[in-house]
Amino acid sequence: MQALLDDILEQVRPLLGQGKVADYIPALAEVPANRLGIAVFGVDGSLYTAGEARQAFSIQSISKVFSLVQAIQHSGEEIWQRLGHEPSGQPFNSLVQLEFERGRPRNPFINAGALVICDINQSRFAAPALSMRDLARRLSGNARVVADAKVAESEYQHRARNAAAAYLMQAFGNFHNEVETVLRSYFHHCALAMSCVDLARACGFLANQGRCPQSGEAVLTPRQTQQVNAIMATSGLYDEAGNFAYRVGLPGKSGVGGGIVAVVPGRFSVCVWSPELNSAGNSLAGMAALELLSERIGWSVFSPLNA
Amino acid sequence: MQALLDDILEQVRPLLGQGKVADYIPALAEVPANRLGIAVFGVDGSLYTAGEARQAFSIQSISKVFSLVQAIQHSGEEIWQRLGHEPSGQPFNSLVQLEFERGRPRNPFINAGALVICDINQSRFAAPALSMRDLARRLSGNARVVADAKVAESEYQHRARNAAAAYLMQAFGNFHNEVETVLRSYFHHCALAMSCVDLARACGFLANQGRCPQSGEAVLTPRQTQQVNAIMATSGLYDEAGNFAYRVGLPGKSGVGGGIVAVVPGRFSVCVWSPELNSAGNSLAGMAALELLSERIGWSVFSPLNA
Amino acid sequence: MQALLDDILEQVRPLLGQGKVADYIPALAEVPANRLGIAVFGVDGSLYTAGEARQAFSIQSISKVFSLVQAIQHSGEEIWQRLGHEPSGQPFNSLVQLEFERGRPRNPFINAGALVICDINQSRFAAPALSMRDLARRLSGNARVVADAKVAESEYQHRARNAAAAYLMQAFGNFHNEVETVLRSYFHHCALAMSCVDLARACGFLANQGRCPQSGEAVLTPRQTQQVNAIMATSGLYDEAGNFAYRVGLPGKSGVGGGIVAVVPGRFSVCVWSPELNSAGNSLAGMAALELLSERIGWSVFSPLNA
Amino acid sequence: MQALLDDILEQVRPLLGQGKVADYIPALAEVPANRLGIAVFGVDGSLYTAGEARQAFSIQSISKVFSLVQAIQHSGEEIWQRLGHEPSGQPFNSLVQLEFERGRPRNPFINAGALVICDINQSRFAAPALSMRDLARRLSGNARVVADAKVAESEYQHRARNAAAAYLMQAFGNFHNEVETVLRSYFHHCALAMSCVDLARACGFLANQGRCPQSGEAVLTPRQTQQVNAIMATSGLYDEAGNFAYRVGLPGKSGVGGGIVAVVPGRFSVCVWSPELNSAGNSLAGMAALELLSERIGWSVFSPLNA
Repeated sequence: MQALLDDILEQVRPLLGQGKVADYIPALAEVPANRLGIAVFGVDGSLYTAGEARQAFSIQSISKVFSLVQAIQHSGEEIWQRLGHEPSGQPFNSLVQLEFERGRPRNPFINAGALVICDINQSRFAAPALSMRDLARRLSGNARVVADAKVAESEYQHRARNAAAAYLMQAFGNFHNEVETVLRSYFHHCALAMSCVDLARACGFLANQGRCPQSGEAVLTPRQTQQVNAIMATSGLYDEAGNFAYRVGLPGKSGVGGGIVAVVPGRFSVCVWSPELNSAGNSLAGMAALELLSERIGWSVFSPLNA
Repeated sequence: MQALLDDILEQVRPLLGQGKVADYIPALAEVPANRLGIAVFGVDGSLYTAGEARQAFSIQSISKVFSLVQAIQHSGEEIWQRLGHEPSGQPFNSLVQLEFERGRPRNPFINAGALVICDINQSRFAAPALSMRDLARRLSGNARVVADAKVAESEYQHRARNAAAAYLMQAFGNFHNEVETVLRSYFHHCALAMSCVDLARACGFLANQGRCPQSGEAVLTPRQTQQVNAIMATSGLYDEAGNFAYRVGLPGKSGVGGGIVAVVPGRFSVCVWSPELNSAGNSLAGMAALELLSERIGWSVFSPLNA
Repeated sequence: MQALLDDILEQVRPLLGQGKVADYIPALAEVPANRLGIAVFGVDGSLYTAGEARQAFSIQSISKVFSLVQAIQHSGEEIWQRLGHEPSGQPFNSLVQLEFERGRPRNPFINAGALVICDINQSRFAAPALSMRDLARRLSGNARVVADAKVAESEYQHRARNAAAAYLMQAFGNFHNEVETVLRSYFHHCALAMSCVDLARACGFLANQGRCPQSGEAVLTPRQTQQVNAIMATSGLYDEAGNFAYRVGLPGKSGVGGGIVAVVPGRFSVCVWSPELNSAGNSLAGMAALELLSERIGWSVFSPLNA
Repeated sequence: MQALLDDILEQVRPLLGQGKVADYIPALAEVPANRLGIAVFGVDGSLYTAGEARQAFSIQSISKVFSLVQAIQHSGEEIWQRLGHEPSGQPFNSLVQLEFERGRPRNPFINAGALVICDINQSRFAAPALSMRDLARRLSGNARVVADAKVAESEYQHRARNAAAAYLMQAFGNFHNEVETVLRSYFHHCALAMSCVDLARACGFLANQGRCPQSGEAVLTPRQTQQVNAIMATSGLYDEAGNFAYRVGLPGKSGVGGGIVAVVPGRFSVCVWSPELNSAGNSLAGMAALELLSERIGWSVFSPLNA
């Protein structure tokens, strides 16, 4: 596996320079573009890394997985009264569909859906930002995980589109807390800084029927784990979820910070990071690395690749 | 497995009467509502059936899988210049998205996408309806598979919405043959009458890395098989693909005739049939049966369910 | 004219009870439903009234005319860089079109467009709510016109959809002041309480080539007056502007408080009030009264009606 | 008036070369670009012309006025069960709105609405194309008006988008005749070749309370005339109807052949022609000529312009 990871990074390194670092908020645009790292965390606790796997980056939308896990933990199936688990088939921040479907977001991985999940969590936790940080620390086994306050503030300053989505849902009766308060929590989640190693470890339970390989904590039931992975597989990569299934064939979740986590059920979780994005907002080199990985291990959830 | 199938049918039988047989064309509305059958076809060639597994029914949109296979066989990756492989996030026959995306359908399993695939096949085959029928015969090992001419004609008489989609794509330059001609082929594919046993066998290659378990024919490469299964997993059940992934966790494809095929990669293909549909247009009892099946075998592609 | 107005009210009075008072904010829902009044103000200064013509009501969207006038007064043609003057062809509060057209509202009489106009005015006036109140006082010649603070506050509490529109425009760079601040101004404008007499007088300049018949003040140029009337004629009655042109044939502007103002160029301005609305959000009896009026005077701007 | 028309053409002539001749069908693209003509036809029977006012051109969408007149003549208010009279607020050939509003077009001047009108007429006339030609001959007083068969055929060959709209309406049950048959009639109407003089005369009844100034024929009632003019005023210039009201202030109807007719109620009808179009599909020089005309006569229906 170590040789494989080294080889994959070598093969995708020439892609550096062909994507575009997210610049919709200034704080993200400052990240050096040519970073590249990967970490694989086995269900047996083994860890393999290559490149800048221990460099923290802004997890951004990968936090939506953890928010969803929190909501499932305390509210279970009930959350689906507020949102769906269908792919959205639209750019990740479109309001058209949200209005057409009367304020009910299609799934928890588009921004509107994640805001509803945050609204649900806001009603349960005294300090959602801290609860989320603690979950991230516990799942990753890294007690020093923190949110980057500068990033969170910068995102808040550029909150207009997310505020529009939240207010639209409020207009339809599907948002219960103060919009500004929930947005603050939401941006704190997005601003969590974690490394490939942190994230691969933190997602280990998704490859292990819901049980954290490190701590043994039962994060989700096996059935819930299937369900979260299913939503990742159909909706985890913005408007490129279908392409990710087609090329990589694994449940995954990306963030505009350049990270992508993916899951090989029963075997390992993986996180790759490279800040330059493709036109769909996913890490350009990260996509390529995961495609190579699934090819080389001869495995996708949709079909074994080795005859 | 035999006991399992018997038990599953017994458990879902009470659902009969709670759905609604498709009635958008008269020929389909005539089917008796309370039918129920299932067939499982192992990659080792084993076959298990329960209920009316040998009763032929109208395969309807399940034919979209075979059309896609034909197109991949002769044109490969080139077909993606004409359509996408992203979930649509819209009711299966919406024109909104098609116009917004300038005549490029999102995937081959919405009607617009299947029409483009038929248009591609029309340019390759002298008699696409016959080529398709022969493929269905070859894959199922049943030389008596035929299209129901009455159903095909009835669908043609009610072609308005599909004609609208085809003409809209033609307006965008993404339709090359005569609309009426392609619609005739398309409805012949939909009108193929096959049983659960026929369909389970015909989809065996999807569970077997692309190789037909019966004949040994290499229908697709392992990589192409992953890709078709991936598209089925993200887009195979109309606007309920996410829910199918969430509940069943297998690649699948449904038709308004009440059939659903699904794939357990490396193990078996399955076809269930019950004509009454739920509000999303998928077989009500069929969905329940497959959910039970995945639970009982403790397997979904997204996570093992047995701790 | 006096006999005509009396007769018109008598004829439409049976319609009372067939509409529905706006109830999207509690403060509006409290208005007694069966009110009915009309006032006609001639360009020669003559005034005719019937029914409850001196009872103040919430002018709501009729204020959009005055906001637009303010913006034209200080910024002229420049405002059309921020919004259009095309009919919207959508329910008055839809975000779909706003997103599709990248944050540029279609006209100043849909909510999004009025919010942009308020944003423009916010950049010019130290206290837009007071400037507007003073304009309303000056144009109506009634120094006691005030905003109903309770209505304004109630609207602010139910601001979600308007906030969504404003934030969406901000996301597209077409909103320059704080959303919350502009919303406060906007709701103060809507909450102005004026009577039919007040409004007929205040709109006199629209029938008089831009000059206030009472004070002689040149509010707009003749050309600008044509333009404002043109926008009223094509976009003044929500999604019923075409029907108003078809049935009444005059430039007009309605509000959900049940008021409608209309203009007979060169002759008079008119305001009718009845709180019960039709399904398009326009005063049910008010529409009928204006249709009768245009028939009985044998005049519409689109064609004389008397052979 | 003669001097005025000469002066107007001189002023707008420098605009020739700045627009773009319609080229969506080859037959239209062949028209020389630098043509310019105007004709004014008074309700007293007087006629003034300037430029190439007697050169026939393809009337295209101006025919929608005559189709509507035919439908009103035989079916009256009943036609509004099939379509609306609201502005569309969308590019003239969008299907989005048509699908959203379940196959009911917004007005008779968008293509979908004109197709429904043709469908209505198809059910009434044995040979709609001939009935329309005869109406055009009668109203214009020119017995040699004919459709250009080459243009009609070329449009039929490029029918895809109109066919899509017709089939979509058929899918919603709002299209009763064969799509192909109605399209043939529709394109024959569009292909009528008439001059500015023909069209100004043919629209004289719209300025004359429904009575043809030449023949004295009562084409429509005064009330119906108001209604047709109202629809022209709110929906007659594709997605620029609001701008036409704002700048010109008269009911009007344009065609992609470069013609625009307009109406000064009680005074005259006018037709201007110049084949180069602006980005909204309306004659560039024609718009400018009509704007000058309304300014110079000091008249718009929305307000007199001379103080």
